[in-house]
Amino acid sequence: MPRFFADETSVCGDKIIVSGSDARHIGYSLRMKIGDEIIFAREGLEYRCTIAEMTADSVRCSIIKTVPSDCEPSVSVTLYQALPKSDKMGMIIQKTTELGISRIVPFVSARCVSRPDAKSAEGKVRRWRKIAEEAAKQSGRGIIPEVAAVMSFEEALKDISADIRLICYENGGIRIAEAGIDSKKSVAVIIGAEGGFQRGETEKAAEYGAVPVWLGRRILRCETCPAAVTAVIMHISGNL
Amino acid sequence: MPRFFADETSVCGDKIIVSGSDARHIGYSLRMKIGDEIIFAREGLEYRCTIAEMTADSVRCSIIKTVPSDCEPSVSVTLYQALPKSDKMGMIIQKTTELGISRIVPFVSARCVSRPDAKSAEGKVRRWRKIAEEAAKQSGRGIIPEVAAVMSFEEALKDISADIRLICYENGGIRIAEAGIDSKKSVAVIIGAEGGFQRGETEKAAEYGAVPVWLGRRILRCETCPAAVTAVIMHISGNL
Repeated sequence: MPRFFADETSVCGDKIIVSGSDARHIGYSLRMKIGDEIIFAREGLEYRCTIAEMTADSVRCSIIKTVPSDCEPSVSVTLYQALPKSDKMGMIIQKTTELGISRIVPFVSARCVSRPDAKSAEGKVRRWRKIAEEAAKQSGRGIIPEVAAVMSFEEALKDISADIRLICYENGGIRIAEAGIDSKKSVAVIIGAEGGFQRGETEKAAEYGAVPVWLGRRILRCETCPAAVTAVIMHISGNL
Repeated sequence: MPRFFADETSVCGDKIIVSGSDARHIGYSLRMKIGDEIIFAREGLEYRCTIAEMTADSVRCSIIKTVPSDCEPSVSVTLYQALPKSDKMGMIIQKTTELGISRIVPFVSARCVSRPDAKSAEGKVRRWRKIAEEAAKQSGRGIIPEVAAVMSFEEALKDISADIRLICYENGGIRIAEAGIDSKKSVAVIIGAEGGFQRGETEKAAEYGAVPVWLGRRILRCETCPAAVTAVIMHISGNL
């Protein structure tokens, strides 16, 4: 059944009213008709609807049933990702969204080659949010993971509030299996860009409670690591 | 330290002689000199060498020490991957190589959109082998994972010899945690293309001992699934 995300303003009592590109997608691309069933998700809820009215640029749906989304993992994982080169951030956001990430915080670390100015960063974040929405839709998520504005390393560390805090470090650390992950704890994972982290940065992260995690002897590309770690956290917490 | 793979003919007694693109890479791109240390890997062995002689198109190295590669996982995983659309197979090979896959067998299933003829398949396989070699080099593997020629679904099933045989199936199955994976068993994982598998195909796979595995309620893209499953298998078997 087709799935869309509803925004704050589109849920009105027992109706959901959509306009813009979603309405055109429903009417023109999917060729849906009055009476067809459709699902809207919003903040972990799933609205099962039927289409009640359609105009050229809006679709009015009647909510038949509201249920908690059963597609969301029980564990909340935030990825703190140092900006990689070229378009890798988009791929990281797409893959980790499919795998169940809750929030992505892009940041700039000492070894980042990519250092966008404020205006360019804003444009990138807008694009990454679109990628998160598309990936959430395609994979059947109950929420769209939040993509935060680009932060400095220090701001990113101050942002962390998770129960378990990990920083991936190629020079050694505990194994993920030893991190105490279970289905009830929130997890923050800090991952570097191409050049990894400087020693001073892992020390700084330790002041904020982040424990170095070592992913074994094979060196993962910076865009492979986030999906691999998210998959393993979802597995350990019983969500994969 | 720079790492390369040695082929069968390049190891001669206590010398390793390389020519062609690797020799040019060592001499011109890396600007290495006589006396510099370099590592060659071959079939799970690591040859620690120093450069003894260099000409315009060959490099002669003296083997100082031969040790078993400590970068290879203890578990042997073969990925049987139905051909996805566009260039996704290259990405799948790159990511799973970094994560420690042993062998990749591309095959054509009922729902594959990509159905290359013999000549085009040969070209693709050559390119995929190059990708496997590059990813093995970059991630520090002790072997280059074998990329087999493109097979039919039935040929792929007949090819399987692993202890544990799994087929990823979005309509249900056991969880990976229940598959009995440990560090000593070989694992075969069968993964579909964009449209997944037809029921008849999973039934056919069952005749060859393949158990359906279900990866949870979030639908993974066909190129996300192989890296996620390989990461989780490496984790369960103590290799990540």
